[in-house]
Amino acid sequence: MENVSKEKEQIIISAARKRFAHYGFSKATMDEIAVDVDMGKASLYYYFPTKESLFQAVLNEELNEFLIEMESILATDMPASSKLVELVKKRLEFFRQSLNLGSLSYHTFNDTNQLKRKFFSDLESKELALINRILSEGKSNGEFEKRIDPESGVVLLHVLQGLRIRTLKYIKSLEMNEETFNLLQSEMNIFLKIFIKGISKKNQ
Amino acid sequence: MENVSKEKEQIIISAARKRFAHYGFSKATMDEIAVDVDMGKASLYYYFPTKESLFQAVLNEELNEFLIEMESILATDMPASSKLVELVKKRLEFFRQSLNLGSLSYHTFNDTNQLKRKFFSDLESKELALINRILSEGKSNGEFEKRIDPESGVVLLHVLQGLRIRTLKYIKSLEMNEETFNLLQSEMNIFLKIFIKGISKKNQ
Repeated sequence: MENVSKEKEQIIISAARKRFAHYGFSKATMDEIAVDVDMGKASLYYYFPTKESLFQAVLNEELNEFLIEMESILATDMPASSKLVELVKKRLEFFRQSLNLGSLSYHTFNDTNQLKRKFFSDLESKELALINRILSEGKSNGEFEKRIDPESGVVLLHVLQGLRIRTLKYIKSLEMNEETFNLLQSEMNIFLKIFIKGISKKNQ
Repeated sequence: MENVSKEKEQIIISAARKRFAHYGFSKATMDEIAVDVDMGKASLYYYFPTKESLFQAVLNEELNEFLIEMESILATDMPASSKLVELVKKRLEFFRQSLNLGSLSYHTFNDTNQLKRKFFSDLESKELALINRILSEGKSNGEFEKRIDPESGVVLLHVLQGLRIRTLKYIKSLEMNEETFNLLQSEMNIFLKIFIKGISKKNQ
């Protein structure tokens, strides 16, 4: 029984992922998701009592995928600087696709809910751990200056957060369209290139 | 008559500056300001029909002072990197004192008002012009790489904006206290040090 439940849960999460990705959190409905998985509404609510709880499950799944992907990048022997570039690229994609940047933004997805706040604070500490591991690696293998400020990792994370939040603030309730996304990505790339040069040893 | 008006306006603006600086925009009242300048409420409203218009005048005055100060820094012969450090320091002070970061934040001071939006967009273009002049100077005098991305100035500005907006978002309606301000300042300093190293020539 336990396994059947897990399986059904997984089917619901997969269907919800598609709905949320296509229509955003506000527009996707539990009714449609129930139809997608060929399930009565009552059954769906048995597994996920609210749309929010289902959304939470989707986010957790996508976060795990992001973290697994990052672990496999960290395990390669590419330079630490390239790992940083990959991290920034993947996390922006994660924010765009998984958190569905536009429709969620921080208007819909405000911080009143404790669960969400916990999600974001977990995400932040996991991202910070990844960044700090890459920075340590670069210091050990001689790519980065040993004397860079110990807070460089947290500042890097806050800059990335800041650039995203700033962009979301200016586009407001509008969807994060392709153009805005590309602009944000290009800003992050320009910043990151300078940042990497700024922490690299001079003989690199 | 014209001069007397200008003089009175100036007296009101000076008094309002103190009130806004001490109590923030929301808590300062027109009544108190009228008392401060020993003027009837009707006379005060003759000069400034709303608290917002008075606030606007205060902001404009403080912005002008900031710009004059920056011009005098740009006119010195200190290295371009030190000018960048000064710019970041002065603009953060400007945001703290003049825009009274905490009590205004972006909850009170939202963007619905066209005048305010204009103010911020003017401010942004003036700041960008200052940054780009410093970057050009550094490229000309051999401090900075000539090949840095032409968008580096705008990215620098957006990072500074992003760090501030991110901090304000997290402290929410709370006042920007000394501790938060110091944290923000320290993040900006760590970032700027890396940024400057990242755009500097290697032989520097």
